[in-house]
Amino acid sequence: MDALLEEVTYDDDGLVAAIAQDAATGDLLMLAYMNKDTLRQTLETGKMTYWSRSRQEEWRKGQSSGNTQTVKEVHLDCDGDALLFKVNQKGGAACHTGHRSCFYREYTGLGSQDGELEDTGEQVFDPAEVYG
Amino acid sequence: MDALLEEVTYDDDGLVAAIAQDAATGDLLMLAYMNKDTLRQTLETGKMTYWSRSRQEEWRKGQSSGNTQTVKEVHLDCDGDALLFKVNQKGGAACHTGHRSCFYREYTGLGSQDGELEDTGEQVFDPAEVYG
Repeated sequence: MDALLEEVTYDDDGLVAAIAQDAATGDLLMLAYMNKDTLRQTLETGKMTYWSRSRQEEWRKGQSSGNTQTVKEVHLDCDGDALLFKVNQKGGAACHTGHRSCFYREYTGLGSQDGELEDTGEQVFDPAEVYG
Repeated sequence: MDALLEEVTYDDDGLVAAIAQDAATGDLLMLAYMNKDTLRQTLETGKMTYWSRSRQEEWRKGQSSGNTQTVKEVHLDCDGDALLFKVNQKGGAACHTGHRSCFYREYTGLGSQDGELEDTGEQVFDPAEVYG
């Protein structure tokens, strides 16, 4: 897997952007970051493993909620600083808010001056029940 | 549009990640970055306008190639540091290499130790003809 690990352009913090897209529906689920070690773990285990910039720790997606992401395809972009993973999302929801996608807020104001952010995403689970 | 501009969490360089997804097919086209000013321009003009980190300048997508991206939807993620734009990609190719998507390199080695990166993306134009 060095062919991939060595071809990635990591930023000054040693991170690369990692996009998760639902392999079945094409829905964008989330954008997070990996370092070389969590990328290696992702490739070895087939389960998405990120680096949490806010907590500064490894983060196996679904370790709290059970909603793991199984990797089906891995793509690297032209300049090597972004990865696209097509995944199977267990439980149907990627977001800690219980939404199917982290991108559940939609801006309604295209072409006007007074748009708002509205929650247009699908709510799959109640985070209070999942995280306690 | 301040509802969106003020809700974004910009990083230490004043940037936010901007994902472009084909509005018709769901294909991931590219990941780049915007600052507050190019995000404002994108919302005002309806044409994707990024901030080039390598050139440190505004970058209206398609200004050289003609392959502009027209915004159809804008979504913000849960922690505010990533935007998803669903776009119409003029000319059918987002990548400066002439590929439909910047994520044209696919890693073939899932589940093994010796994967390679292979070009599996669709080539739409010859960059030598477009950029001269």
